[in-house]
Amino acid sequence: MTWKTAVVDIPYGGAKGGIGCNPKDLSKSELERLTRVFTQKIHDLIGIHTDVPAPDMGTNAQTMAWILDEYSKFHGHSPAIVTGKPIDLGGSLGREAATGRGVVYATEALLAEHGKSIKDLTFAIQGFGNVGSWVARLIHEKGGKVIAVSDITGAVKNPSGIDIKELLKHKERTGSLKDFNGGDAMDAHELLVHECDVLIPCALGGVLNRENAAEVKAKYIIEAANHPTDPEADEILCKKGVLILPDIYANAGGVTVSYFEWVQNIQGFMWDEEKVNRELKRYMTRGFQNVKNMCKSHDCNLRMGAFTLGVNRVARSTVLRGWEA
Amino acid sequence: MTWKTAVVDIPYGGAKGGIGCNPKDLSKSELERLTRVFTQKIHDLIGIHTDVPAPDMGTNAQTMAWILDEYSKFHGHSPAIVTGKPIDLGGSLGREAATGRGVVYATEALLAEHGKSIKDLTFAIQGFGNVGSWVARLIHEKGGKVIAVSDITGAVKNPSGIDIKELLKHKERTGSLKDFNGGDAMDAHELLVHECDVLIPCALGGVLNRENAAEVKAKYIIEAANHPTDPEADEILCKKGVLILPDIYANAGGVTVSYFEWVQNIQGFMWDEEKVNRELKRYMTRGFQNVKNMCKSHDCNLRMGAFTLGVNRVARSTVLRGWEA
Amino acid sequence: MTWKTAVVDIPYGGAKGGIGCNPKDLSKSELERLTRVFTQKIHDLIGIHTDVPAPDMGTNAQTMAWILDEYSKFHGHSPAIVTGKPIDLGGSLGREAATGRGVVYATEALLAEHGKSIKDLTFAIQGFGNVGSWVARLIHEKGGKVIAVSDITGAVKNPSGIDIKELLKHKERTGSLKDFNGGDAMDAHELLVHECDVLIPCALGGVLNRENAAEVKAKYIIEAANHPTDPEADEILCKKGVLILPDIYANAGGVTVSYFEWVQNIQGFMWDEEKVNRELKRYMTRGFQNVKNMCKSHDCNLRMGAFTLGVNRVARSTVLRGWEA
Amino acid sequence: MTWKTAVVDIPYGGAKGGIGCNPKDLSKSELERLTRVFTQKIHDLIGIHTDVPAPDMGTNAQTMAWILDEYSKFHGHSPAIVTGKPIDLGGSLGREAATGRGVVYATEALLAEHGKSIKDLTFAIQGFGNVGSWVARLIHEKGGKVIAVSDITGAVKNPSGIDIKELLKHKERTGSLKDFNGGDAMDAHELLVHECDVLIPCALGGVLNRENAAEVKAKYIIEAANHPTDPEADEILCKKGVLILPDIYANAGGVTVSYFEWVQNIQGFMWDEEKVNRELKRYMTRGFQNVKNMCKSHDCNLRMGAFTLGVNRVARSTVLRGWEA
Amino acid sequence: MTWKTAVVDIPYGGAKGGIGCNPKDLSKSELERLTRVFTQKIHDLIGIHTDVPAPDMGTNAQTMAWILDEYSKFHGHSPAIVTGKPIDLGGSLGREAATGRGVVYATEALLAEHGKSIKDLTFAIQGFGNVGSWVARLIHEKGGKVIAVSDITGAVKNPSGIDIKELLKHKERTGSLKDFNGGDAMDAHELLVHECDVLIPCALGGVLNRENAAEVKAKYIIEAANHPTDPEADEILCKKGVLILPDIYANAGGVTVSYFEWVQNIQGFMWDEEKVNRELKRYMTRGFQNVKNMCKSHDCNLRMGAFTLGVNRVARSTVLRGWEA
Amino acid sequence: MTWKTAVVDIPYGGAKGGIGCNPKDLSKSELERLTRVFTQKIHDLIGIHTDVPAPDMGTNAQTMAWILDEYSKFHGHSPAIVTGKPIDLGGSLGREAATGRGVVYATEALLAEHGKSIKDLTFAIQGFGNVGSWVARLIHEKGGKVIAVSDITGAVKNPSGIDIKELLKHKERTGSLKDFNGGDAMDAHELLVHECDVLIPCALGGVLNRENAAEVKAKYIIEAANHPTDPEADEILCKKGVLILPDIYANAGGVTVSYFEWVQNIQGFMWDEEKVNRELKRYMTRGFQNVKNMCKSHDCNLRMGAFTLGVNRVARSTVLRGWEA
Repeated sequence: MTWKTAVVDIPYGGAKGGIGCNPKDLSKSELERLTRVFTQKIHDLIGIHTDVPAPDMGTNAQTMAWILDEYSKFHGHSPAIVTGKPIDLGGSLGREAATGRGVVYATEALLAEHGKSIKDLTFAIQGFGNVGSWVARLIHEKGGKVIAVSDITGAVKNPSGIDIKELLKHKERTGSLKDFNGGDAMDAHELLVHECDVLIPCALGGVLNRENAAEVKAKYIIEAANHPTDPEADEILCKKGVLILPDIYANAGGVTVSYFEWVQNIQGFMWDEEKVNRELKRYMTRGFQNVKNMCKSHDCNLRMGAFTLGVNRVARSTVLRGWEA
Repeated sequence: MTWKTAVVDIPYGGAKGGIGCNPKDLSKSELERLTRVFTQKIHDLIGIHTDVPAPDMGTNAQTMAWILDEYSKFHGHSPAIVTGKPIDLGGSLGREAATGRGVVYATEALLAEHGKSIKDLTFAIQGFGNVGSWVARLIHEKGGKVIAVSDITGAVKNPSGIDIKELLKHKERTGSLKDFNGGDAMDAHELLVHECDVLIPCALGGVLNRENAAEVKAKYIIEAANHPTDPEADEILCKKGVLILPDIYANAGGVTVSYFEWVQNIQGFMWDEEKVNRELKRYMTRGFQNVKNMCKSHDCNLRMGAFTLGVNRVARSTVLRGWEA
Repeated sequence: MTWKTAVVDIPYGGAKGGIGCNPKDLSKSELERLTRVFTQKIHDLIGIHTDVPAPDMGTNAQTMAWILDEYSKFHGHSPAIVTGKPIDLGGSLGREAATGRGVVYATEALLAEHGKSIKDLTFAIQGFGNVGSWVARLIHEKGGKVIAVSDITGAVKNPSGIDIKELLKHKERTGSLKDFNGGDAMDAHELLVHECDVLIPCALGGVLNRENAAEVKAKYIIEAANHPTDPEADEILCKKGVLILPDIYANAGGVTVSYFEWVQNIQGFMWDEEKVNRELKRYMTRGFQNVKNMCKSHDCNLRMGAFTLGVNRVARSTVLRGWEA
Repeated sequence: MTWKTAVVDIPYGGAKGGIGCNPKDLSKSELERLTRVFTQKIHDLIGIHTDVPAPDMGTNAQTMAWILDEYSKFHGHSPAIVTGKPIDLGGSLGREAATGRGVVYATEALLAEHGKSIKDLTFAIQGFGNVGSWVARLIHEKGGKVIAVSDITGAVKNPSGIDIKELLKHKERTGSLKDFNGGDAMDAHELLVHECDVLIPCALGGVLNRENAAEVKAKYIIEAANHPTDPEADEILCKKGVLILPDIYANAGGVTVSYFEWVQNIQGFMWDEEKVNRELKRYMTRGFQNVKNMCKSHDCNLRMGAFTLGVNRVARSTVLRGWEA
Repeated sequence: MTWKTAVVDIPYGGAKGGIGCNPKDLSKSELERLTRVFTQKIHDLIGIHTDVPAPDMGTNAQTMAWILDEYSKFHGHSPAIVTGKPIDLGGSLGREAATGRGVVYATEALLAEHGKSIKDLTFAIQGFGNVGSWVARLIHEKGGKVIAVSDITGAVKNPSGIDIKELLKHKERTGSLKDFNGGDAMDAHELLVHECDVLIPCALGGVLNRENAAEVKAKYIIEAANHPTDPEADEILCKKGVLILPDIYANAGGVTVSYFEWVQNIQGFMWDEEKVNRELKRYMTRGFQNVKNMCKSHDCNLRMGAFTLGVNRVARSTVLRGWEA
Repeated sequence: MTWKTAVVDIPYGGAKGGIGCNPKDLSKSELERLTRVFTQKIHDLIGIHTDVPAPDMGTNAQTMAWILDEYSKFHGHSPAIVTGKPIDLGGSLGREAATGRGVVYATEALLAEHGKSIKDLTFAIQGFGNVGSWVARLIHEKGGKVIAVSDITGAVKNPSGIDIKELLKHKERTGSLKDFNGGDAMDAHELLVHECDVLIPCALGGVLNRENAAEVKAKYIIEAANHPTDPEADEILCKKGVLILPDIYANAGGVTVSYFEWVQNIQGFMWDEEKVNRELKRYMTRGFQNVKNMCKSHDCNLRMGAFTLGVNRVARSTVLRGWEA
């Protein structure tokens, strides 16, 4: 997380904390009491300028609301103490779509670098959850041809482009990608090696590996998921000349809008959604330019450029603050 | 106040506090000492994120300056601790006109909903103090025809439209609406039932009541004053099909710019007047859309829609914070 | 400093503090330890809303980084505690050029008042350090003809206008203004009385004095340096009808962007350089209008207008806060 | 309370706060939650050096324990925030007996002034609850002859002196004073006018009034209860030459040991019971001397002397702090 | 530690923290810097009423001085933040001897319970470091006959009693117990089973075990060391009727005087050594009575009585604070 | 002051601060306002554990009361923030007499060292203000023969011993030492060289100098004043074998009771006067032993011993805290 936030130049680091329990085994009232007591114990360790929790696996906007409420008993009303809150309590507009939207802005930046644009290309998207469905919807809106989509319920393809709005309605209605009449069913595993210009894995890590890397047809891979490409696949794909936009840059839109939420709380003034998206685009585009410049000066690929950028920024700050030695 | 701020979606609630005295009986030095000692006693109960005083009956910008000065002895320089301050000490530009200007933006939003605009209509304005005179001036500037104006000194009418700039000069010169040669004198009580498209009561509560409600000719009433329409009149006017823009929405421009003043202080950066007015328009217009949507989904009139909106927002936050039960 | 910040209406005052030592005699490690212990001793006296150090003679961005780091041990991460920090630690873009850029905006405001613009005029610039070189570069970019430049290494003139970009390269290469082949060498002292429309002293105080004031040919003098005109020269030049833009206004761009840096830190959100420059222009232009208005209402020259503006603002705040005797 | 604490010269004032509810209608868990939320709301208004709650009607040591626990979440471990706590959480030894023991020390001081001592006299004690039973027990231990005791369950008399230890056992066993074989039953109302040297009302207010005052036989009345003598009775008794030790002095032992509890918590060091009692004696004896001196210099009775002492102390502090005017 | 402090009824719990390093490998300057940075990181987690460090293995009074100095930079002068400080910085008199002296007070309490006293009995003392040598010296001073002493350098016995003052001089002079001419050398292992009334192990844990327990001749064992008796030995000795004073009570004198040091710092007033020792005796004697009472009411041996006492006190506080469930 | 407090081992240092004004030129109300504003400006620099003001020239108990009152507005009720307060606001009993009483305890300690006591000796006392009159009174009470007393109003001698109680009454009645019929008038200057065992200068500095030192008859000089002996006199007297008890020890009783006042405030518990005096005696006696030990180990006179003691204590603390280098 530290390198990811450094790549997009937001003043955040990375840390995790948690409670050893299975939230699914607890009632809502138990979860609330557990969250409140946890907050009582850590309230002096977190802080608006110290450590700002946000939801991850097993927690959600309601959990953040409880933390906010309990923390505020000790420190006064403090909406900036958490991000990912409900909008009614100071959450940011546009946060739900932020990771997906950031992926699309990243994709646009990469394509523009190569003189291309979304509307000229075909896309295969693996995963149709929060991130994947927003990526698909936005690419569709921008005129890109989404020719294949998969998730754990199935996969669908249509060489003329899938109507994503219809697919979203179908999924909402049936809970599945199966039986969508706007395309043909396909094998989900086949999607990754499907003929397309841009492949966007939006689901699990490690899906591109030595089993399938050599078969990938796409010219661009956008890592919307965390670690979708394992090291062996990375090497194979690079050798083939596939351009990979690495996850630590490509999916940084989520934490970026978390940061915007914090900024809005700090400033006591909420942005409208259009402003959120405009700033997200600015951050993602600037991030790409910075990665690209690092690639140029170090003659390396995008993944190495992104890591170098992130590590250098942290190292430079460390030296300036006098923490070396 | 809680419902009003919830309607325009600003993060404020409502509370009042005061000192039992008649400010007119005290010298300026006595007022200053009283204000300072009061501030010493409550400085730990108010706070930038807790409770932010603003002037009301019997207090003014100078009072706020004293509170600011005394509070800052305890908590460091804290311009955000009060709103309605002198501009030299961090007050907002545009605050003096804010209530009147908000009324006009509210009027525009309502009219636009019905395919109309200010420049096509006639207006009768009751009250020519701070709010009423700003409403009149702005409507006049936007091309609306102000055909009748009244205050406690008299009333004037002109079916071709009164030149408000001239009327303001006349009032400043003579202290009265009487003897204005740009129109004819009329009975002040008659104004409320004068023939016009839009009636804007900007003075006291209860001026529309069962005595006169049935006689009202206007198609639209904009409640710039607090509670100008009593419950009986409300029922009569609704039955007649008069559209009433309720006070908790219509005159929320004042508290909205108080909030903007606080935002500017929090951010350490003052806005120019044009920005203040632009944001005020955005808040008033968005507020109208939210009220209107509430009316649609609950099939109710504007007053009920505004209350439902405000109460729902507060209730939703309450539940999210875990305060139910 | 108090009057200067009041002229451009930023919420800062003026104060200085320091350590009695010669930084050149100390190793970097000694400087760091000295700065940290100093910060430990004063950390309760400075503060984000109290007193915000910035670099001056003998200190620099690295010094500010150490103060920031040490202060944050006591008060949590506090980038707003200093300005003039390294950009990696929250410094503002555009700060390096700020004084020079502010001088140019001030010049534009003055010329516009007289129906003129930079691109129509000739300029002599004394000093080619940080301020002078930025002034020269920006005037050159805006189409102004810089016909003479001097610094302690020499002076160069070219009646057709010096190519400043080339001169900067020459200076960077050779460390001197001598032997530049894009103009002719001249006597550095002669520059101040050289034929030109606008004279901009960017170096030391007192360079215009009774020795040379009567010989000045320029119609406008822009005081980019502090106190370049001594009182006797001021009187002579005023009598001759030369218009002098006084230092407390003309070179306020540096402290203004220091203030912007603080604002960005307070808001938790950094501006891009274009925004910094746009706001700087707004502040400098507004400052000129305010000075000009003061001159009109008091029928005085620009220097007196600027002082009157600054002193009045401070006095008015003092009275409002109740500090008069 | 302010006058009482001033009489015994402890640095406390008086104030009350509460929750409108009937504790008997609430479960222990409800009482705990109510107490905790109340503490959350007032935790910034009370404080070790500001306002220190102690139990009164409807609250007890357990309630104090909850306040202590909740308060400590906000301010760190703070045993001094309440008095009357359980001994395990920092309560003082000797507090249970403190009011009764203080009454006895007060009695000794008064008698000594008249050359008498407890062991030479006869006592009638009205009330046999916490205060009355401790008074009886301690007088009995010191050799005083307790010849009559009453409470709401009955009354007993024995001209040779009641064996109080036996009476306590009887009361504990039977819950009543009835049927005690170490004396004869008597009418409870008769006790107040029973022949005795010292009468100690330890129960309700107003028991001595114009109905019975003239019939009182005692030469000394010790007001262990609050306000046992109404103003009319006071006048009658004074005229008869009965010496009354007033409640604001006589029953101050309880608040004095509350104060000792706070001192022990402040000092982080608990006293043994012997030390508590020794200090209590010192405070009560000194208090009597101070009252007596006031009586001498103002030539007034003990009640007036005690009030004068208390009011003077508060007034003198007020003037010294500069609060007059 | 929690049970030990509960047994002697001091308001402390137990916790440990440390740095993974070998202090012997670090220079004094490295130790100082390490200690200061450690303190900077934890200064908000420790506190006078929260967590009070004291020296243990690898740290000493100098380490505490550095913590005190660094902590005070953040929180103001705070001598109570550590115990075991140098006396010049607020350390307590009598702390060096405290554990040994406490052992002797504990022994006296136990013997008194059986109608005996130190001066009538013979003692074997294992260990002659800080604790053992103080125990020996004090027993000698009180007229007890110390007939055997051992440490890692050897052992000495004298049935007529060893002159401990001479032995201390010998040890200081030679660094060893060997060749002391005031007694005969003996096998160190033999000491534990030497004929004596009271055996006081003052060195390592586990020295009394199934190998030697049955051979022990002493009637009383005082556990000055931590865990000198392993569970098997405990069972054997109990069956034999040996009375064992358990470590959690017997060696609590050290932490008790640490607590006194904190009390003195809290009160801003240092005790003379005589007062320290007097209070230590009071605490140890009271502790013994409390343990004894627990033994009586639960009919158990001293070890079980001490644990029951400690656990009960903690449990009762927990319930009173509302932490059950 | 730092050395003086180190000699008597109280945890205080020395510092002075003040306002440049003549209190005699100001009304009480002006003094109060000046003191309050001064306190507002320094309230964050002083503190109970940082810097504790006490009265000196031009300030008194009332001034301390104002500081206490104003400081408490910012930091809550804080009696320990000043010493020398009025007793009603937390001042210590016995403070008025403290310097004089300390001088007498010091004298007793010195005499005891030489096998003498006050009741066997004759005394000459220069100065009869607060210090001198308390010294005289206490010596008189202890049976010492005060044979000469002087102040600025005159001097009196009586070889059989002056009745100090009578002299005090005389002084109170007449404002002067003149015309006292319990002795004979003498020349005030002659007092210092009067025949006596012990000379106690209680007034100004420098009264013993090369003019009169050789003529001094006393065997002991107790420096109750500050610097009564100038360096030349010191040398002459030492050579003559006169024993001088130096001021930094002899008159430390005043600051010692200031410290006791602070301790009582910190502990929330006031001492009776007998306890104050007992502790003062303990501190003065211990101080003498410590000075004496220093004299022995360094073979020096009392003045050098006292300074060595004070400087060593401060130096040792400095090294332990790690401030060397």
